[in-house]
Amino acid sequence: MLLRNHWYVAAWSEDVGRTPLGRVLLGEYVVLFRGLDGAPVALENRCAHRNLPLSEGRLDGDEIECGYHGLVFGRDGVCTHVPGQADVPGWARVKSYPVVERDRWVFVWMGAPQDADPALVPDYHARLADPDWYAVTGQTLVKGGYRLVLDNLLDLSHLTYVHSSTTGNRALAEEATLITEEEDDFVRVTRWMEGIPPAPAFVQYTGDDGPIDRWQVSKFIPPAYIDICNGSTVAGEGLPQEERPASQGRWGFVVYHALTPETETTTHQFYAVAGHRSMVPAHMEATFTEQMMGVLAEDLAVYEAQQRAIDLDPETGGADVNPRGTIAADDALLRMRRMIRRLYGEERRA
Amino acid sequence: MLLRNHWYVAAWSEDVGRTPLGRVLLGEYVVLFRGLDGAPVALENRCAHRNLPLSEGRLDGDEIECGYHGLVFGRDGVCTHVPGQADVPGWARVKSYPVVERDRWVFVWMGAPQDADPALVPDYHARLADPDWYAVTGQTLVKGGYRLVLDNLLDLSHLTYVHSSTTGNRALAEEATLITEEEDDFVRVTRWMEGIPPAPAFVQYTGDDGPIDRWQVSKFIPPAYIDICNGSTVAGEGLPQEERPASQGRWGFVVYHALTPETETTTHQFYAVAGHRSMVPAHMEATFTEQMMGVLAEDLAVYEAQQRAIDLDPETGGADVNPRGTIAADDALLRMRRMIRRLYGEERRA
Amino acid sequence: MLLRNHWYVAAWSEDVGRTPLGRVLLGEYVVLFRGLDGAPVALENRCAHRNLPLSEGRLDGDEIECGYHGLVFGRDGVCTHVPGQADVPGWARVKSYPVVERDRWVFVWMGAPQDADPALVPDYHARLADPDWYAVTGQTLVKGGYRLVLDNLLDLSHLTYVHSSTTGNRALAEEATLITEEEDDFVRVTRWMEGIPPAPAFVQYTGDDGPIDRWQVSKFIPPAYIDICNGSTVAGEGLPQEERPASQGRWGFVVYHALTPETETTTHQFYAVAGHRSMVPAHMEATFTEQMMGVLAEDLAVYEAQQRAIDLDPETGGADVNPRGTIAADDALLRMRRMIRRLYGEERRA
Repeated sequence: MLLRNHWYVAAWSEDVGRTPLGRVLLGEYVVLFRGLDGAPVALENRCAHRNLPLSEGRLDGDEIECGYHGLVFGRDGVCTHVPGQADVPGWARVKSYPVVERDRWVFVWMGAPQDADPALVPDYHARLADPDWYAVTGQTLVKGGYRLVLDNLLDLSHLTYVHSSTTGNRALAEEATLITEEEDDFVRVTRWMEGIPPAPAFVQYTGDDGPIDRWQVSKFIPPAYIDICNGSTVAGEGLPQEERPASQGRWGFVVYHALTPETETTTHQFYAVAGHRSMVPAHMEATFTEQMMGVLAEDLAVYEAQQRAIDLDPETGGADVNPRGTIAADDALLRMRRMIRRLYGEERRA
Repeated sequence: MLLRNHWYVAAWSEDVGRTPLGRVLLGEYVVLFRGLDGAPVALENRCAHRNLPLSEGRLDGDEIECGYHGLVFGRDGVCTHVPGQADVPGWARVKSYPVVERDRWVFVWMGAPQDADPALVPDYHARLADPDWYAVTGQTLVKGGYRLVLDNLLDLSHLTYVHSSTTGNRALAEEATLITEEEDDFVRVTRWMEGIPPAPAFVQYTGDDGPIDRWQVSKFIPPAYIDICNGSTVAGEGLPQEERPASQGRWGFVVYHALTPETETTTHQFYAVAGHRSMVPAHMEATFTEQMMGVLAEDLAVYEAQQRAIDLDPETGGADVNPRGTIAADDALLRMRRMIRRLYGEERRA
Repeated sequence: MLLRNHWYVAAWSEDVGRTPLGRVLLGEYVVLFRGLDGAPVALENRCAHRNLPLSEGRLDGDEIECGYHGLVFGRDGVCTHVPGQADVPGWARVKSYPVVERDRWVFVWMGAPQDADPALVPDYHARLADPDWYAVTGQTLVKGGYRLVLDNLLDLSHLTYVHSSTTGNRALAEEATLITEEEDDFVRVTRWMEGIPPAPAFVQYTGDDGPIDRWQVSKFIPPAYIDICNGSTVAGEGLPQEERPASQGRWGFVVYHALTPETETTTHQFYAVAGHRSMVPAHMEATFTEQMMGVLAEDLAVYEAQQRAIDLDPETGGADVNPRGTIAADDALLRMRRMIRRLYGEERRA
């Protein structure tokens, strides 16, 4: 169940340049490169002539030349030259994808090109590139379906069990109040905890092991974006609900994930975990990086173990989880799944 | 064609402890661990909530806590705690398997739990743990279907061709008299040879290269157990048929194999090859181990080469052998296969 | 779409000896060895009894003994001995393939044996073994369908893009006149270029960087043979069309490829690239070898990248290319594909 009429992150900006890059997105083979003006281009990565990936070829100005028989394609995917013959036949074109670059991400529209409205690019604000923030960024190919990753980030009680050496502790799973909000185009869940013991990282960065108020706000935007705000204060100071999505209080950090299905059961995960420099000072940067990379690796192990258990389950058909029931903490992820199903149905009907 | 209403060896006793062990048995994902009383427990290795294998979690007393969101399951597979909520929903349970531990093997019942009668555990007597015997034991994952292994052990003429450096010689294949016996719950075949030259190992351990009488008694017990008694005497001394299944005469050894399908075409092979200390004295133990490990490796190469040839045969469908006909030596293995088909039919009708 | 009623190269002569060699040809598992008279033998590589590949067994004179239970098969595939019993049942035989050895290749007939006429073995003349020629020979398993390799060799404009460091340059793709000839049993395409700049290798071997006339004659013989003659002269000297298939002029070389499908999407490529010793003198042999192995590796990368793009294309079904249209340079390869389809249709009707 892959949604197509959406902008997906195809690559980090710095990975798209004058060397063509081939990548499978939603089962489609895409080649990415930059034109002479620096703007990213995305074309079908399969020469219309004899199927060689165009990423095996080379750039010639604003055009890409196939590495097999030299057919040349413009940025619009239309062939402009066939070696050894004067005319270019009409079939000689490859699919061209709308592209938008914003902050440090190159977004590609995987649906009908005429619907590709740049205003629909998710508003991932500038902190990715903001010098006031220290960001750990990267990319992983997850051997698991994209909804497994969304599930993870919409139920942060898992920090207690998966990340207990850094961001989780027992109180996180047991003593949170959940507030779930849903609009047409997002699901947001807040976990709110009053007067709980701080998890290890909170003590390490604040130097205070006294009780805290803590919040985690996860916001899902279809098809597969997650924005998490983690914040805390000294116990009793807290923050009103309307301020929690945008503030880390005394100490916290933010997480962005853009998930782009490679196939139904494999996922490109583009991640950024960022702390304001007032909360992650220079001498703590290496520690913060190591901790957050550890957290990401712990989650990756979960996805792949889940996918293995799902593949072995004769009742799921291998494509997705098949939970036998739901618990209270599942509210947000169930809303996410219903939203994806609704959007998928709308795409199919259109 | 996997029989379910049977006890299968799931693990060696020493591999089941307080660290959960995940293993695929008959296509089902199972987690094994020991309770506080030391008794082994076998549960479905897939959290009822979001499918993480429970083997990724941790033990808490007699219970196992999922490593993702902390659901806790008792030894009976019933969930006893859902973090963050007071009540436990009724669907929150995983399958529990009956378990019996005997000699050094942990047996799991893969069929309907109410039929799990410990009296049906195959009577693998105590020589596995008897200090009077020297045993070579271990475990292999065979990339071949379980019936290929049973076939091997029910036609020991293969020693001539596969194991000629140790236990086989030409006379073994050419000069044996076969006696096949079948009851409802076993097939037993005796190969009986009079006055034949001894195979290399027999000369090595007895110091006598004169002719011998030799017997091999293979007993198949469904679903997939084999017990082999190899014995010999000076030529002419022999043993009456009724004594051959339990005696090694002047020199011989015993073999036990428990085969547990992982899938239709892969098999957990649990093996023990044992010699009475009077026949395998201390200074020969290392030699005996090396020889028997060599024999097992030779057989493993056969299974995997067979499976490859079967997979390449358009007429078999990949799941099992498709012999074009049978020879006299196949009598026991054909009876084994008929018995498995009969039991499979009975399971399907029930 | 695999043609069966043809001779295929199964192995280099030097790879077939008194050690049985197992190999998959057209999806069939074949064992190759030499009889006592030195003549090659090809049998089904799967014992009729219990499916062990016969290549795991051993030769006994002119016969092959199965390495499992010792059944013995003659060169005609008929079993001559079953250990432990006096008579040999009629079903005990394996398929026998007609074999011809010529020059340094062992050819096997994969169709109905009664149609195996040695006169149909493609006339690969003796230069493979002629001491006046220096030949680079070898074998690769291509992870791509055999028609991808034929396509490559029937459109040599690709030298411009794939092999520009050795045999290709821009003029080759842009300034060639194509002459395509087709008979019932071959397709031949000549690329003829007048007064073009020489590609790097031509300069290197002749010491002359002046313009040349150049020709490339590719001849396809079904099911999957290619013979290429590359030649050149000083510009203006040229050669008449009827002499080009057999002459390299002042400098050039010949290429032979025999392609034997392993499966629909994997191919055994047997290759020979040869230069007359007057054109590849002794001190240039190592250079010539390095260059031609480089060319073969460049082509291999193309096939495997194509196959990957084809496998990712939902419209092809994975088995073959699905070009959206054709260009002038495709004439020969389209004729090749039509010829294969015609022959396939004839086989199906027969």
